[in-house]
Amino acid sequence: MNWRLVINLLSKLMVLEAALMLPSLLVSLMHGEQTLLVFGLPILLLLALGLPLTLKQPALKNVHAREGLAVVGLSWVLLSLFGTLPFLLSGAIPGFINALFETVSGFTTTGASILSKVEGLPQGLLFWRSFTHWVGGMGVLILTLAIMPKLSGRSTTLARAESPGPTFSKVVPRMRDTARWMYAVYTLMSLVQLVLLIISGLPLFDAFIHTMGTAGTGGFSSRNASIGAYNNPFAEGIITVFMLLFGMNFAVYFKLLRGEGCAAFRSEEVRAYWLLASLAILLTTLLLLPQYGNFLTALRYSSFQVSSIMSTTGYATTDYVLWPQFLHILLVLLMMVGACAGSTAGGMKVSRVVMLRKAAAREIGQATAPRKVRLLQMDRKTVSEETVRSVLVFFIIYTGFLFLGTLIASTDGHDFATSFSAVISCLSNIGPGLNLVGPSGNFDIFSPHVKVLLTFFMLAGRLEFIPLLALFHREMWAKGH
Amino acid sequence: MNWRLVINLLSKLMVLEAALMLPSLLVSLMHGEQTLLVFGLPILLLLALGLPLTLKQPALKNVHAREGLAVVGLSWVLLSLFGTLPFLLSGAIPGFINALFETVSGFTTTGASILSKVEGLPQGLLFWRSFTHWVGGMGVLILTLAIMPKLSGRSTTLARAESPGPTFSKVVPRMRDTARWMYAVYTLMSLVQLVLLIISGLPLFDAFIHTMGTAGTGGFSSRNASIGAYNNPFAEGIITVFMLLFGMNFAVYFKLLRGEGCAAFRSEEVRAYWLLASLAILLTTLLLLPQYGNFLTALRYSSFQVSSIMSTTGYATTDYVLWPQFLHILLVLLMMVGACAGSTAGGMKVSRVVMLRKAAAREIGQATAPRKVRLLQMDRKTVSEETVRSVLVFFIIYTGFLFLGTLIASTDGHDFATSFSAVISCLSNIGPGLNLVGPSGNFDIFSPHVKVLLTFFMLAGRLEFIPLLALFHREMWAKGH
Repeated sequence: MNWRLVINLLSKLMVLEAALMLPSLLVSLMHGEQTLLVFGLPILLLLALGLPLTLKQPALKNVHAREGLAVVGLSWVLLSLFGTLPFLLSGAIPGFINALFETVSGFTTTGASILSKVEGLPQGLLFWRSFTHWVGGMGVLILTLAIMPKLSGRSTTLARAESPGPTFSKVVPRMRDTARWMYAVYTLMSLVQLVLLIISGLPLFDAFIHTMGTAGTGGFSSRNASIGAYNNPFAEGIITVFMLLFGMNFAVYFKLLRGEGCAAFRSEEVRAYWLLASLAILLTTLLLLPQYGNFLTALRYSSFQVSSIMSTTGYATTDYVLWPQFLHILLVLLMMVGACAGSTAGGMKVSRVVMLRKAAAREIGQATAPRKVRLLQMDRKTVSEETVRSVLVFFIIYTGFLFLGTLIASTDGHDFATSFSAVISCLSNIGPGLNLVGPSGNFDIFSPHVKVLLTFFMLAGRLEFIPLLALFHREMWAKGH
Repeated sequence: MNWRLVINLLSKLMVLEAALMLPSLLVSLMHGEQTLLVFGLPILLLLALGLPLTLKQPALKNVHAREGLAVVGLSWVLLSLFGTLPFLLSGAIPGFINALFETVSGFTTTGASILSKVEGLPQGLLFWRSFTHWVGGMGVLILTLAIMPKLSGRSTTLARAESPGPTFSKVVPRMRDTARWMYAVYTLMSLVQLVLLIISGLPLFDAFIHTMGTAGTGGFSSRNASIGAYNNPFAEGIITVFMLLFGMNFAVYFKLLRGEGCAAFRSEEVRAYWLLASLAILLTTLLLLPQYGNFLTALRYSSFQVSSIMSTTGYATTDYVLWPQFLHILLVLLMMVGACAGSTAGGMKVSRVVMLRKAAAREIGQATAPRKVRLLQMDRKTVSEETVRSVLVFFIIYTGFLFLGTLIASTDGHDFATSFSAVISCLSNIGPGLNLVGPSGNFDIFSPHVKVLLTFFMLAGRLEFIPLLALFHREMWAKGH
């Protein structure tokens, strides 16, 4: 392990986190809140620890996959640990475990909260909480790649490990330009949504909070009743559309900007994503007709909730726990699937589900005629058997975590649906689950050991397991290569 | 598709089913019950349809994997369809869907019932119901192979497709001898259990019923309260031990008989099976201490219920739905895992779970050092990548069926745990599930469309998906090869 490189990159990340706290510090100052202690001290601490270490240049030889994995895994842990400071120093969230849960929930864009009331929090803290969504959505390391001068020869490994999905495609040859380009589109789309939300009548601060929550597909709100608090159909419509847009593969926007719009939408994943979303919204609307009386009202609530769950955002305008059982299961399945690879969303990703379906069909075909060679294709290109295997194993790890996590969560004695959906919600970075952890509930019902587990699961889900699990693999720390 | 061969084998199977009904006919006669209509007519029908078709010799060339799959899939469907006749003709189970559910539950050794009371049923029918467990456990095609003269060149394909587990190993070179040997051990073990149960004080008829239910890891009982009705700790102990024994890979008994006992128990699957069972029993006993007051009583109930679930039998001596939530999830996980490959049990099988764990660990190792070649080993032998892939895909199909099945089952509006556990119970061929389908409940709560789904799932689980799903694959019926 090339420790000098790892430490150098981690120290750069600490300096970056200090910079990331500045907007929240400004918000805090503007509202005349306690600022120096809550944001000033953490910033100083991060700079004091980080700056000296960045000065020493690391040797760039001996950079392997292990170093990339270690940086990704450790940087998210470090970022979360320091991110708790504003919550702890302000006393807004007492207890390290609670503060860590809330911070990890922010950075991983989960949006699950242990707070039963957010309306009493200082504005600076609310901003920090939602800002972590925005940064965590597109990725902190990708941000590092975009803004830091010449990072290392392994920048693609870092981006690959942090960017969600079974494969990673650079839209332009140089990784740094790809990272910059991604953040540029991300910022642009966020600004468009911000302006639209202000036009719809949301207060400036609330528009900021909910834009950041939507863009990162996070779900933290500044209101206890989430988006439902505004009862503003225009704002709901904007958020519905942008949740789905931020759940789409960002490569599509790149192609659109290059005038290859049709080609972009010919992607199997994107088509499957919109098909699934449309079908789920239609089905939900029809099943909610008896409850809401007319088609438009049913469509308003169903489209918001389905888009929120499928994009793994987690905002709510109504409590879907009161919907029929069938829709509970449908939402749980959508939670597992999630949205597109290369977006800010969580979950298994539509492309993986498409590949799983193809792999299963292939296996049955293989049984009927064993000697025929069958290659798996996506978008008319052959997928390497290595990728197919990694997708299959991803599913194994996801469901393994889900089942064992449910077992551990059930030690708290809550009903099956609560434990099961809480675990899925954290693994897929959604936010709410079913029953006690539904849109009206919160995660404070769990004991500390379950909160620690769920915190770990949020990180594992966001990083798609490998970079985090590798930290516990003996070959990671073995001497030699 | 070589239809002549398929039809010839299927017709032999019909003659076999007629023979299989004879013991029940005898029981029925002995008890002076309505016999000619209930068993005589189905036997005549089976012989009338089957015998003429067996006379025509099929061409044995052009026998491919497809023919083997078609025979396995279709024979189980056919067997189940004709097996409903005694229930329907006697009027004991009104309605074709209910009768089919009960028959498939019998042959697949699930043991889930739509009957709320079994104590009023005629003895002949009770015997038939449990006899289907005994035959279905080891397999009807393996029985066919064992007793029919010279079947076809593809007998290993048939045995492989019907025998549970990721791989199939012939214990002796000729398939027919393997099949005979397996049934011999099976019969011998059943007889030992029968004698022990009679000694323990069970009435002769009840001893027969529960031996067949244990041997096939089925779970149908002649009493409404299952084994709990006898309140006989000796009988409970016998059944506990035999449930676990019938859940073990039968190759172990072969090795034991050849004096290679130590080698047999060195198998990774067998060791993992006993380790898992012991740990689960110990943990359950400790958690039930407060409820049952003393260690021995807690051990008595925990060991029975855990062995029953893990061996996928489904007998009960108490209602575990009243146990703590943690144990519900533990039992659900054990339901999914099931017992050993090459046994009469259902579920994913311990060996597959061991391989899944290894495949996941390998993938993480692969990420830390991508260039190293890593082979997956079981019992110190390399597992082919083809087998690894088929195990991974098996898990995908199992969980895919589980989640989509839960979605469809939830249309009946029952709670999450009921729908979810009912589907697992049928897929893993257990019998009871949680909440409304727990040991005190029954499957009559579901609507006809859910019953049809669960019936299909029982068959799919018993045949481990491929032979049944292949029937719906276009390459199966394509012309050419």
